[in-house]
Amino acid sequence: MILQKEITLKPRNRGFHLITYEILQQLPELKKISKGTAHVFIQHTSASLTVNENADPTVRSDMEKFFNRAVPESDMKYYDHTLEGADDMTSHIKASILGSSITVPVTDGVFNLGTWQGIYLCEHRNQGGARRIVVTVYGE
Amino acid sequence: MILQKEITLKPRNRGFHLITYEILQQLPELKKISKGTAHVFIQHTSASLTVNENADPTVRSDMEKFFNRAVPESDMKYYDHTLEGADDMTSHIKASILGSSITVPVTDGVFNLGTWQGIYLCEHRNQGGARRIVVTVYGE
Amino acid sequence: MILQKEITLKPRNRGFHLITYEILQQLPELKKISKGTAHVFIQHTSASLTVNENADPTVRSDMEKFFNRAVPESDMKYYDHTLEGADDMTSHIKASILGSSITVPVTDGVFNLGTWQGIYLCEHRNQGGARRIVVTVYGE
Repeated sequence: MILQKEITLKPRNRGFHLITYEILQQLPELKKISKGTAHVFIQHTSASLTVNENADPTVRSDMEKFFNRAVPESDMKYYDHTLEGADDMTSHIKASILGSSITVPVTDGVFNLGTWQGIYLCEHRNQGGARRIVVTVYGE
Repeated sequence: MILQKEITLKPRNRGFHLITYEILQQLPELKKISKGTAHVFIQHTSASLTVNENADPTVRSDMEKFFNRAVPESDMKYYDHTLEGADDMTSHIKASILGSSITVPVTDGVFNLGTWQGIYLCEHRNQGGARRIVVTVYGE
Repeated sequence: MILQKEITLKPRNRGFHLITYEILQQLPELKKISKGTAHVFIQHTSASLTVNENADPTVRSDMEKFFNRAVPESDMKYYDHTLEGADDMTSHIKASILGSSITVPVTDGVFNLGTWQGIYLCEHRNQGGARRIVVTVYGE
C-alpha cells in the first residue's frame, strides 16, 4: 500500500516548530498501516525538517540560537547569493545541514517515534510563509 | 516484502562507533532481499546515525573531536535547556546535524554499501545507555 | 514495483554540483511510477548528496565557501586521519554533516521536487574522480 499526500503547513515564524500533530491530522489513513515507513519531504530550499525533542520548547529556541551562531548572517559579506537579504544564503546552508526530508517508521497505525521525539519544521527565513510538504507512506 | 524489527544496541561510550555488524546479526532475513532498501531509525534525540569510513578508527575519534569543537559544551551559558548538564543541549544539536535515520540500498541479500562505508552510532551523551533502533527493510 | 540501478557520475571538481538531469537521464523507467519515492545513495565517504537551490550557481559556490570555513583544512593539526592530505578528514566530516543519501517523492513519472529544488553532488575531495551512486525507486 502506497499513500501520497501534499500538505500545506500553516505559516510559522522563523525558528524550530513541532509539526507532528499537524501532519498526523492530515493522515487518517495511517491507521491502516501495521508496518512501514513515512517519508516527509519539504519542497523548499530555505526551510528544513528534522526529528528532535518534543517536550521542552527551549530545545527549539536553543536550536535556533545555535544555528544562528553557526551560520551567521554577518557572513553575508562573503556570499554572492544575497539578493533576498541576509537570511537568504544562510537559509540555504541551514537547509542542507538539517536536510529536506525525514523518514520515520510506522508501526500499528502510528509514527513509531521514541517517547521524546517529534517532527520539527525548521523555518530559516524571516518571512517563510506557508510551506508545502509531500508525505509518502509505504506499508502493509 | 516488508520486514520491521526493533533492536536494542549494546551501550557505548560517548563517541562514534561502527555498528554495521551488530545490525546485520539481527537481520538474517536480509538474505532474502535481492533489491530494496533498509531504513535504520534511532528512537532517541541525543544520539544519531550516519554512514562513514569503516576501516580506520581515527576517523571516528576525529569526528568526535570535530563535533565537540563545532558544538562546544562551553556554549551551555547561551542555552536554556541545560537541566541534564553540559552534554544535554549539545547532544540534541549534534543529533539534528547528523540525523536520526539513514537509508541504505539492499542488493543480493546485503547492505549495498561502498567498500569503505559502514554505519555509525553517534553517541553524544556521556552516559547514553542502550539505544533502541527500528529497522524497516523493503524489497523483493 | 522496485527499480534499482547503479550509476557512475562523471568526475567533477571539488564543490557543489547539480546532478538532477544526469540522474534522470539514467532513469527512463521513472515515467511508469505514478506515486512513490526515489532513494539516491552515494557509495563514498568523502562526497555527499543534498537537495538545494537549482537556479543560481552562486548558491553552489557559496555553499562551498561556507563548508570550507565551517570545516577548515587548517584543523588538520588536530586530526589523526591525515594520510591523504588536508582534504581527507574534512571530507569525511562534511560527508556526515550533509549525508550520504537523499530520498525524494516521485509523482506522475517525475521527481516531485519544489520549483527551485535540485539534487546536488557535494564533492569534498580535490581529486574525487567518478562517483558511484545507487538509485532505488519504489512505487506503483
